[in-house]
Amino acid sequence: MTKVAIVGASGYTGGELIRLLENHEKVEIDAITSRKYADTPIDKIHPNIRNTDLVFKDLEPNSLDADIIFTATPHGASMKIVPKILETGAKVIDLSGDYRFKDIAVYEKWYELEHSSPLNAVYGLPEIYRKEIKKADLIANPGCFPTGAILATFPLSKEKLVEKIIIDSKTGVSGGGAAPSDVFHYPNCSDNVNPYKVTSHRHMPEIQQELGIYSNVKVSFTPHLVPVIRGILTTSHSFLEDDSITPEKLIKIYKKQYKDEIFVEVLENGEIPQLNSVRGSNFAHIGCFEIDENGRLVIISAIDNLVKGASGQAIHNMNLICKFKENEGLNSYGLHP
Amino acid sequence: MTKVAIVGASGYTGGELIRLLENHEKVEIDAITSRKYADTPIDKIHPNIRNTDLVFKDLEPNSLDADIIFTATPHGASMKIVPKILETGAKVIDLSGDYRFKDIAVYEKWYELEHSSPLNAVYGLPEIYRKEIKKADLIANPGCFPTGAILATFPLSKEKLVEKIIIDSKTGVSGGGAAPSDVFHYPNCSDNVNPYKVTSHRHMPEIQQELGIYSNVKVSFTPHLVPVIRGILTTSHSFLEDDSITPEKLIKIYKKQYKDEIFVEVLENGEIPQLNSVRGSNFAHIGCFEIDENGRLVIISAIDNLVKGASGQAIHNMNLICKFKENEGLNSYGLHP
Amino acid sequence: MTKVAIVGASGYTGGELIRLLENHEKVEIDAITSRKYADTPIDKIHPNIRNTDLVFKDLEPNSLDADIIFTATPHGASMKIVPKILETGAKVIDLSGDYRFKDIAVYEKWYELEHSSPLNAVYGLPEIYRKEIKKADLIANPGCFPTGAILATFPLSKEKLVEKIIIDSKTGVSGGGAAPSDVFHYPNCSDNVNPYKVTSHRHMPEIQQELGIYSNVKVSFTPHLVPVIRGILTTSHSFLEDDSITPEKLIKIYKKQYKDEIFVEVLENGEIPQLNSVRGSNFAHIGCFEIDENGRLVIISAIDNLVKGASGQAIHNMNLICKFKENEGLNSYGLHP
Amino acid sequence: MTKVAIVGASGYTGGELIRLLENHEKVEIDAITSRKYADTPIDKIHPNIRNTDLVFKDLEPNSLDADIIFTATPHGASMKIVPKILETGAKVIDLSGDYRFKDIAVYEKWYELEHSSPLNAVYGLPEIYRKEIKKADLIANPGCFPTGAILATFPLSKEKLVEKIIIDSKTGVSGGGAAPSDVFHYPNCSDNVNPYKVTSHRHMPEIQQELGIYSNVKVSFTPHLVPVIRGILTTSHSFLEDDSITPEKLIKIYKKQYKDEIFVEVLENGEIPQLNSVRGSNFAHIGCFEIDENGRLVIISAIDNLVKGASGQAIHNMNLICKFKENEGLNSYGLHP
Repeated sequence: MTKVAIVGASGYTGGELIRLLENHEKVEIDAITSRKYADTPIDKIHPNIRNTDLVFKDLEPNSLDADIIFTATPHGASMKIVPKILETGAKVIDLSGDYRFKDIAVYEKWYELEHSSPLNAVYGLPEIYRKEIKKADLIANPGCFPTGAILATFPLSKEKLVEKIIIDSKTGVSGGGAAPSDVFHYPNCSDNVNPYKVTSHRHMPEIQQELGIYSNVKVSFTPHLVPVIRGILTTSHSFLEDDSITPEKLIKIYKKQYKDEIFVEVLENGEIPQLNSVRGSNFAHIGCFEIDENGRLVIISAIDNLVKGASGQAIHNMNLICKFKENEGLNSYGLHP
Repeated sequence: MTKVAIVGASGYTGGELIRLLENHEKVEIDAITSRKYADTPIDKIHPNIRNTDLVFKDLEPNSLDADIIFTATPHGASMKIVPKILETGAKVIDLSGDYRFKDIAVYEKWYELEHSSPLNAVYGLPEIYRKEIKKADLIANPGCFPTGAILATFPLSKEKLVEKIIIDSKTGVSGGGAAPSDVFHYPNCSDNVNPYKVTSHRHMPEIQQELGIYSNVKVSFTPHLVPVIRGILTTSHSFLEDDSITPEKLIKIYKKQYKDEIFVEVLENGEIPQLNSVRGSNFAHIGCFEIDENGRLVIISAIDNLVKGASGQAIHNMNLICKFKENEGLNSYGLHP
Repeated sequence: MTKVAIVGASGYTGGELIRLLENHEKVEIDAITSRKYADTPIDKIHPNIRNTDLVFKDLEPNSLDADIIFTATPHGASMKIVPKILETGAKVIDLSGDYRFKDIAVYEKWYELEHSSPLNAVYGLPEIYRKEIKKADLIANPGCFPTGAILATFPLSKEKLVEKIIIDSKTGVSGGGAAPSDVFHYPNCSDNVNPYKVTSHRHMPEIQQELGIYSNVKVSFTPHLVPVIRGILTTSHSFLEDDSITPEKLIKIYKKQYKDEIFVEVLENGEIPQLNSVRGSNFAHIGCFEIDENGRLVIISAIDNLVKGASGQAIHNMNLICKFKENEGLNSYGLHP
Repeated sequence: MTKVAIVGASGYTGGELIRLLENHEKVEIDAITSRKYADTPIDKIHPNIRNTDLVFKDLEPNSLDADIIFTATPHGASMKIVPKILETGAKVIDLSGDYRFKDIAVYEKWYELEHSSPLNAVYGLPEIYRKEIKKADLIANPGCFPTGAILATFPLSKEKLVEKIIIDSKTGVSGGGAAPSDVFHYPNCSDNVNPYKVTSHRHMPEIQQELGIYSNVKVSFTPHLVPVIRGILTTSHSFLEDDSITPEKLIKIYKKQYKDEIFVEVLENGEIPQLNSVRGSNFAHIGCFEIDENGRLVIISAIDNLVKGASGQAIHNMNLICKFKENEGLNSYGLHP
């Protein structure tokens, strides 16, 4: 059995890692750490997970003894522990934003932090970087919005079909984490829609970085908080440069791009992605491909922000690194309804 | 007292008309009609409305004896009864789409219906057509999405600031009406986001008609169903032609445009409109005015789809026609939380 | 115009008082106080309330110059300021629990606080204490659960029909106030039901006090948090002592009890109270009156916890004290849907 | 591989059977039937289930070739097909109410139907009937409310601790099935609580049958629809006959009763069951054990109505019949949040 550990395991992404890894047949969880909840049994924090012996421990990162270590720590915290963990010989899958940027200056501008220990990491989007992931020591697991947005639109950039893309995303509240605040207070979220960081969300430069590899496309991004627990529905709007492009051609491009991808489903026949087809699962649905009278193209994706947008994708990365079956532990279908 | 009647009063917009008119000091409701619920007391259908003597009646439109008649009937049905009502000398405020289009061909294309009795009507958006409304016999009350979208964006067209506008709207489920269906089944709507008629919603040409009066702007429109009972949050994305335009200038333009408008609130200082500030009220909040690095401008509006987007606006139109105070019966603030 | 002030106006009950009083024709709001938000314009905290000049002030209670002062302060805080306000000659309507108990020992046991300044107050449930309220200087505005529970069941105690009553209540999340916490965090509340203080909620002795006036009935109480913003649905279960009692007799008793009550609606013909008939309004719906094979009687009530369960009832009390029409400012019907 | 078939597979319980069986390592799904959706690929109805070859077929029950057949058909329909299926030699797990009653007269009274083909069946609650289930040809899979209610209270009946039990249940809307109706229309369900069939729900006699085996306890039952997709939270209220019973003793009784049960978790230390700990899983959480001043005992259970309350329990029954590991295919933890 491969031994894994989870640093910062008390948050939502930590909980999802444990939920999924507990039923993964090739690994065993050696340690879950939390400073705040040291010595607390897991079910006090993650009441869905029972009948394990797991207890949060306040352990130093370099004292962990595991083959794969997930750092489910906030940005700023990851950069302080990841280098130490790498020294132990473990491979690290980091769920924060700390290692996602090729250009440290971009990170420092958008995260408003000095980066104390830049390292080379592979951006952990298996649909693009599968080959690199298999050989990596450090994976920067993608952000939730970028996962939905990049999967929905990078073929457009790759094929140089558009010059500008507007990403209008609708996210479930779990994306904000487990810490209560005014914004996430039930009476403020329920029966409401809350656009936030309308032009200033730090996932924008992450999407821009990845789409910008293939063309000069300019990415604009606006997230909205909707009264949903889990899920990100991404509506991408762009104007096609070439008016000979048809929905059928686009579907063909997408089908080809994702033909070997076990977790990406390209929807046809006018089926539109919805959150409740992927809830709780590692699947991404991509569809729509409609073009209106003004030449505007709409492509939509749906993911579970905590699974494909975080912990499930992290496990997918682990499966690649460890040469497990890609979908080991990630087979479950979404909860519908 | 001015006598009013409501034709097709059993739906959501009928219910809202009654809720608001029952506390309007200048009018009395003479009749509420419904074929389906003939002789049913109102509280069996609208259980919030009690202690009235109102009973649904199956009355012929031309037998109504009222000064103002609201037709809360579906499109296709309104065109059959409005001409007959006008013959009685009553003024009509029609909440359907039947009289909103200047060009009948546009109506017939998008509503897939032959129009049996075109008439001149005034488009009942008081913020634009106040003068015309005061003299009108027939008001075409605007659609819910167009109300939110036009208020958010027509100054951009008027000032010729943009060439294309993408309207990405998020609507509460009450916008779909009171009749149950798969799409509006609770387990399908809740914890979900459902983009629909992504490039083919019939409110698009209505928005295009109104914005197109001032410039050649091209409107693209996509609605999403979100798990909210009431409200439309409209996010407009557009690219500014002139990069000397600043948020401050835009706020000034909007402030000036709406300075005498009792129901429009232009938000400043970075405040973003949210549905739960206008829920149940006739107010529209407009704000954001942010411009990103790519020159994309975002302007956002929030309304209650059943009030400002339908019945409240219809009463506003009545107040104008009857020379009542504009906000008579429409004073209530939104429910927050 | 009668001058009113609201102490502790930044919370949900403060917001509701302002929302309703701003459209009350007989009063003007002279001051709204908040220590935390001193000098903040109201719409920063209550974004639904616009176009007023109201600004929170940090004022000493005894410096307020008003005829009626609402103390929307937490328990423990009210007892410190109410005596000082009364000295100014103003009448006080206190929305906390501090003055609801006839027996201070009960208060001190359940609120785990020493009461520093007991005073005679009238329990502000107009349906029972109308006469006393009209002459009172200090009103103890009832708790939200007690309002729903007492209205649903006190005729049973009065008529000595039952010996034990189980109150199983389902409350909206706004009942927990505006301060965020783990329990009220959207991802924890949504799609969940959370029974809490199952046998230890401090509204139990308040219900017991009022029902116990008429008989030796024993009250058991359990609240549940449900994913609803506003509203308390109270299901009362009791076993009838006398098996000649029929639903018809019970309806007659209730109809008689509430025949002059403008805000209480006794539902007949099997209609069951629901929250969405009273949302945002001061109405209480009472109904069901079913008796099962075991002699168990079910009576159900529905109220809006922030209106009939708090601020609306407080205004009703003010109307009585000031000899206004009882429903002045409280006419609005519930929002449905 | 054991071959299974699902009759009536287009509803919610059918969808859940497929979701879970597709990842069950010991079985393969041979056929899914639906008259209405004959020849429709599964993902048009259950859009969460992808990459299978499953297509609905309109097959005669006796033409099915499977070892285990699940009948996810409505009551009334099951009785027409189950006898025919049994003749094929297959074992049947019926999810309807048709075979749950020992006394046909009770069935016929509460279901208002004549029973055309009574048969001996084992009531499929593994925690009580494990031994009988292993040898059964026909399993009557329990109702959703009875599963939650019986698990929460049968030890009380078995130990003869109480004479009357009031079951106050709160159910998610998926319990009403996939067919839209006024009651389940989003704007009617959301932000609402709807008590229904307050003293006349047909799950009452089912609970009474099972609890009545051990004592003369009388069961009263009232369900409430709450704005939740999945889950039943059951609050049982009863008065202890013997006042020497303490919470500690009760916990001991429950712990002993369920000590070998893999899917039942008895919560201690004041932890109260909540729906979001069991969402999507086959686990039942039971807890509370509080006794108030009046001797009222509260025991609460939480289950997912579609899993432990239907399809998961059906698979548990299959595992027992087929001598698989009891939790084969049912390992997944609940989704939290």
